[in-house]
Amino acid sequence: MRHIHIIGIGTGNPEHVTIQAINAMNAADAVFLPTKGEGKEGLVSVRREICERYISNPRCSIIDYEVPKRQTEGRSYVQGVAEWHASLADSYVELILSLPPNGAGAFLVWGDPSLYDSTIRIIERARERMVIEFDYSVVPGITSVQALTASHRIPLNHVGKPVEITTGRRLSELGLQSESTVVMLDGDQSFRKIDEPDAEIFWGAYLGTEDEIIVSGRLGDVAEEILKARAEARQRHGWIMDIYLLRKGRDLEEL
Amino acid sequence: MRHIHIIGIGTGNPEHVTIQAINAMNAADAVFLPTKGEGKEGLVSVRREICERYISNPRCSIIDYEVPKRQTEGRSYVQGVAEWHASLADSYVELILSLPPNGAGAFLVWGDPSLYDSTIRIIERARERMVIEFDYSVVPGITSVQALTASHRIPLNHVGKPVEITTGRRLSELGLQSESTVVMLDGDQSFRKIDEPDAEIFWGAYLGTEDEIIVSGRLGDVAEEILKARAEARQRHGWIMDIYLLRKGRDLEEL
Ligand SMILES: C[S@@+](CC[C@H](N)C(=O)[O-])C[C@H]1O[C@@H](n2cnc3c(N)ncnc32)[C@H](O)[C@@H]1O
Ligand SMILES: C[S@@+](CC[C@H](N)C(=O)[O-])C[C@H]1O[C@@H](n2cnc3c(N)ncnc32)[C@H](O)[C@@H]1O
Repeated sequence: MRHIHIIGIGTGNPEHVTIQAINAMNAADAVFLPTKGEGKEGLVSVRREICERYISNPRCSIIDYEVPKRQTEGRSYVQGVAEWHASLADSYVELILSLPPNGAGAFLVWGDPSLYDSTIRIIERARERMVIEFDYSVVPGITSVQALTASHRIPLNHVGKPVEITTGRRLSELGLQSESTVVMLDGDQSFRKIDEPDAEIFWGAYLGTEDEIIVSGRLGDVAEEILKARAEARQRHGWIMDIYLLRKGRDLEEL
Repeated sequence: MRHIHIIGIGTGNPEHVTIQAINAMNAADAVFLPTKGEGKEGLVSVRREICERYISNPRCSIIDYEVPKRQTEGRSYVQGVAEWHASLADSYVELILSLPPNGAGAFLVWGDPSLYDSTIRIIERARERMVIEFDYSVVPGITSVQALTASHRIPLNHVGKPVEITTGRRLSELGLQSESTVVMLDGDQSFRKIDEPDAEIFWGAYLGTEDEIIVSGRLGDVAEEILKARAEARQRHGWIMDIYLLRKGRDLEEL
């Protein structure tokens, strides 16, 4: 049977890569690289650099594939995502068919494959097609949450307290739900829309890369600074990836 | 100035270690290893194995230190933790003083240093002592959350939905708060105490190690099986570390 490795590669620093990831890449006959071509050149080039640095197996080839664009018009959000997954599953089946019998392939996933990423879902869909039999395994990776807390040198949680990981959309709809709230996938700087001037914010963009920027402070004091830094960086690079932790309450309080 | 690396090492599989972690260990004059001696021999030996495998710098030495026991009697939870941190900060100051001037030391942290771990807090306390000047940095690591989802080959979140990471204590007090809830630090199998037979549970113990066990299914169907497997494994090894994800609702539903 063919085998697919879904490999977490961390969030921009090629040194986020684990030994398990390196071994899985080198066990593959082909590493499949998405060519996104929508301006996020940084993401593609980090993947290429990781392959160049760590693949020492001469029998392992790099295969580019095109990522279809997600259609949004005239569809609900979920319909759009479901169609996009279906069309990616078609591409995955093609890629897997190109492997030698009993061969192995690898998909390199940004961050960790479990966190706001659908590679696992799409691989499951590709299996359901029943066009080709294959098995798969998942190699964990450093997430942008870990990259954020490491750069700020902070614990994610207060002692014994919970953490929520959520999206910008949900933050703006519901406000802060947890003393420690990580916000991802926020194209809209939703921290502007909540009324929590005394919360602390720990913000980071392009974490792990040479362009990393971090800002932290009382939300009421630094929100403007973050908005400015973000707009300016986004303009300069043509794209941005950012994440932040919002924290209320005090550490080491009775549970 | 002296420098301390706080290095996440993953959760039991020496291959969870990142290239960044390996480079940080090799940049250190000393790696400080806790000798816990409370039966969790597995944890100590994984750290030793990581040092043996990856430290190639002959000038880097391994320094053992004893971890004080946390006192609980006649104290609130927070008092006990605060005292324990203070006493660990004393040990850290000693260790850092033993480094050469401008030397570097490393603490190896289980999983990631940001998640339910206090090494960063204790290092901050050691700095506040003002006995010795030093700086520090944090190297992210694979968390037990990532190890859990990788072994089960599942996404952590439903598409576009939030995730809560919490403790056994809080789960038993408040029940499920989020469609995707990760429970850590649960000595009490709190999944028994909530009335959610239709939730799915993805459970794992000793993740990343050779003793890894995973069980998943409808909570109402597999709770007993998990309780049995857990009790039996705990007896056999003398200790256990486990974590689980509880999931309700359906993936790919309109937000
Ligand atoms: C589609 S999700 C993928 C997350 C990824 N699987 C992970 O483990 O971090 C993309 C979101 O992750 C966050 N993100 C990923 N990489 C980042 C980076 N290098 N710096 C800041 N945020 C990042 C941003 O919030 C972005 O909107
Ligand atoms: C004090 S916390 C440390 C967490 C660690 N910093 C991390 O990033 O995973 C210990 C808890 O982590 C979880 N844990 C850590 N390692 C584990 C493993 N190998 N298998 C299962 N659970 C683990 C358990 O829930 C345990 O109670």
